[in-house]
Amino acid sequence: MAHTSREVRLKSRPVGTPKAENFEVASVTLADPGPGEVLVKNLWMSVDPYMRGRMYDRESYVPPFQIGEALQGGAVGQVVASGDPAFKAGDLVESMFGWREAFVGPAGALQKLPASNAPPQAYLGVLGMPGMTAYTGLLNIGDPKPGETVFVSGGAGAVGSIVAQIAKIKGCTVVASVGSDDKAKWLKGVGVDEVVNYKTCGDLLAAVRAAAPKGIDVYFDNVGGEHLEVALEVARPGARFAECGMISQYNDTEPKPGPRNLIYVVGKSLKIQGFIVSNYWSQRAQFLTDMTQWIAEGKIKWEETVENGIENAPKAFLNLFSGANTGKMLVKLS
Amino acid sequence: MAHTSREVRLKSRPVGTPKAENFEVASVTLADPGPGEVLVKNLWMSVDPYMRGRMYDRESYVPPFQIGEALQGGAVGQVVASGDPAFKAGDLVESMFGWREAFVGPAGALQKLPASNAPPQAYLGVLGMPGMTAYTGLLNIGDPKPGETVFVSGGAGAVGSIVAQIAKIKGCTVVASVGSDDKAKWLKGVGVDEVVNYKTCGDLLAAVRAAAPKGIDVYFDNVGGEHLEVALEVARPGARFAECGMISQYNDTEPKPGPRNLIYVVGKSLKIQGFIVSNYWSQRAQFLTDMTQWIAEGKIKWEETVENGIENAPKAFLNLFSGANTGKMLVKLS
Repeated sequence: MAHTSREVRLKSRPVGTPKAENFEVASVTLADPGPGEVLVKNLWMSVDPYMRGRMYDRESYVPPFQIGEALQGGAVGQVVASGDPAFKAGDLVESMFGWREAFVGPAGALQKLPASNAPPQAYLGVLGMPGMTAYTGLLNIGDPKPGETVFVSGGAGAVGSIVAQIAKIKGCTVVASVGSDDKAKWLKGVGVDEVVNYKTCGDLLAAVRAAAPKGIDVYFDNVGGEHLEVALEVARPGARFAECGMISQYNDTEPKPGPRNLIYVVGKSLKIQGFIVSNYWSQRAQFLTDMTQWIAEGKIKWEETVENGIENAPKAFLNLFSGANTGKMLVKLS
Repeated sequence: MAHTSREVRLKSRPVGTPKAENFEVASVTLADPGPGEVLVKNLWMSVDPYMRGRMYDRESYVPPFQIGEALQGGAVGQVVASGDPAFKAGDLVESMFGWREAFVGPAGALQKLPASNAPPQAYLGVLGMPGMTAYTGLLNIGDPKPGETVFVSGGAGAVGSIVAQIAKIKGCTVVASVGSDDKAKWLKGVGVDEVVNYKTCGDLLAAVRAAAPKGIDVYFDNVGGEHLEVALEVARPGARFAECGMISQYNDTEPKPGPRNLIYVVGKSLKIQGFIVSNYWSQRAQFLTDMTQWIAEGKIKWEETVENGIENAPKAFLNLFSGANTGKMLVKLS
């Protein structure tokens, strides 16, 4: 029995901000799974800012996407047919085959979702890579202590909103920056102490100073650029910067100069440390235990922004860079 | 009995590169030491790049120097008369009263030099603050492992030359940058693997790439600026940057943009950590034990660049910024 699946391919490498024309939708026919293979129908797929980096043709911690091939990334789906004894039809699985309605893949590349009350798409967000990014980066690098002040940029995003709430669980004062008043309202509603709308606040440094008058002990950076310079300015001696991403710079066509006040790293004894979530895979079980408990206790809440249909995956991805998402940006596939 | 001492005072705050006219020499008359006080005649005084920061009128980890007052800093001297039972005439002591031929100070602000074969001025260099800066910054932040490559800028300075040799002791390949061929020759003579003369090499990135073809695992930064950008470029994933100083920027009158490639901190999972030696005072005994042993074994060598007379202290200080010193810059006072 042949199966048809649509997928989104990289048609051309974006220059600057990606555009719809950099992507194309194609149909493929899938064969039945052979021995050791599994046919999966995806229910949800993820778009994430880090994918922009893979659209450049350069060496990095993951290889670049190839022109004419389907984009890769996290997805959750349901097994339709299995040629491997570890999986049976109906199983919910996570994979990294990405922007496809369905695929046939080796059983070894699939992970069964844990039994849980959480909806399957949560494993692309709060219980998945973005949640674990927030958890491991904040706790390992930020090392927040009760009574300290944590500043997080991109505070309403899939990562930032979890960082903000974990910092509250750890007894910190939390200051977040966001790009809309709706996002600010949501974060205040989940207990964030101070929220700055960087698009409307005028002087970002003055706004963050007012929100954190004693300075900051931890900065969780999702955006880079001006936010990083502001964080260096308000950092207290010994502050830790967890460098998760610099979305404000992902579409730059020329290298942008770094912060003018980086010299504070010396005099204030700052630690500025970058990371990718895979550095901390060994902490996955602890992450799932803690996060599941916090969700059950009502201490962690999350939002989703959803586009429907594989043909809208490029739109969902492009919207990440205009900040159209509150919480996790997802594409619902069926 | 009255004693006369000359001292160097800050006459005006430098704008940009300090000039001789920013300093003035004055004579003061010292009274005999009262109870709990000690009269010390300084033998040697230190000039160090960090002092430039204290000439600005701004908040930092040490308070600014005041106009019309003697500059502070490390000195070693000999007790002339003591009003405190802990010290007697002839004792060799270290103090932070700075740019003075002699002074009367409280006994609690003096440290006796350990019994040692080292000359007293070594306690302003290899066995003092610069040596301990090299030791603690390299070992705590750089965390060099055998077989790794360590890059150090300002490699022939009081700190850099010790960093380079400790890294060799730790089994690393060491690449240093210096500003003259004589300095390069000296460093090669003490076992440094590759030395780049940044003033004559042309393209610094190409020169460092050639010297460290597999990239670097540790960068010990004394200079900031272009060197930092080069280090980010050649850093291997997981590299550690010990940010000790940025002498290339100390005299800037306008904030200088940071490195254009700081975004590597994320993708390469780099750690960029600043420090000041006082963060690690608890390691002082271990530092003295290790360094004394390494010196006895002939594994650590050092150079001195000496000016004579308190009136030449400003010249010695100014020469730090043109790189006139090989090894520790000192002023001999008697």
